[in-house]
Amino acid sequence: MIEMEPIGKVRTQAVDIPRSWTVSEVEGEMVIDKKYMLGIKDIHPGEKIVVIFNFHQSRPFNPEDLAQHPRGDHERPKKGVFSICSPHRPNPIGMSVLTVTAVKENIISVKGLDMIDGTPILDIKPYR
Amino acid sequence: MIEMEPIGKVRTQAVDIPRSWTVSEVEGEMVIDKKYMLGIKDIHPGEKIVVIFNFHQSRPFNPEDLAQHPRGDHERPKKGVFSICSPHRPNPIGMSVLTVTAVKENIISVKGLDMIDGTPILDIKPYR
Repeated sequence: MIEMEPIGKVRTQAVDIPRSWTVSEVEGEMVIDKKYMLGIKDIHPGEKIVVIFNFHQSRPFNPEDLAQHPRGDHERPKKGVFSICSPHRPNPIGMSVLTVTAVKENIISVKGLDMIDGTPILDIKPYR
Repeated sequence: MIEMEPIGKVRTQAVDIPRSWTVSEVEGEMVIDKKYMLGIKDIHPGEKIVVIFNFHQSRPFNPEDLAQHPRGDHERPKKGVFSICSPHRPNPIGMSVLTVTAVKENIISVKGLDMIDGTPILDIKPYR
C-alpha cells in the first residue's frame, strides 16, 4: 500500500461541472497548503499544468467496474476502465490539464476545471 | 491520508533509463495484476496511453526539495518542484505517456519508458 497526503484542495463555486477538462471552461482555484508554497513559485499565468487529484467521492471499486459504459451512457458499449476516464477506478486518481489564470501566494487560479469543490489535489506537474 | 495499491509493475531489461518519456525509446512491459485484466481489453497496439506510477525508490520528501535544480544540474537555477518532473515530490507520483506496441493477456508491451524495472503502476488512462 502506498500512502498519499493531499497538497491542497480545489475551490470552485461552479455547480455544473463538465465530465472532462477537454470540454470545460469552468474557473476556480487550487488552494495549496502553505507549507508547499515555495514549490509553486514558478507556475505562471497562461501556463498549462497537469493536475493529479483524488476522486474523493467515488464509491469503493468493485470488479463490475472493470468494464463500464463510457460517460455512464448505456447506449454505448462497455469499455475497459483503463481506456476511459471514469472516476470509478482501482485507484481513484484523476488527471486534468488546466490553464493557470493567476497565482497569488498559495492560491493558483485555473480554468478548465472538471473537479468538484473540495477535491483533494495530489500533485502538479508541467504540461508537455 | 489516501491509500493506493499498485495495479501492476514495469518490467524492463534496460539499465540506462532516460529521465523523461519525451526523449525515451526504451521498451519494456507493464505486467498488470490478472484480476484487472478485463480493464485493459480496449488498449491496442499503436495507441498512446497515460501511465500514473509510483516513484518507489525516492527518498522521503523534505522541505529542501521544494525548489530543486532541474535534472539535478547545478548550473541551472532551482525551480519549484511543481514546475519540474523530479522524482522527489511531496507525493511520489510519476506520469508518462507511452506507446503501446502489443497487448497479450495481462501484459502490455510499451515504448518510451522512463521508469525503472519494478516500478509500481497505479493507473492507466487514455491519452488525449
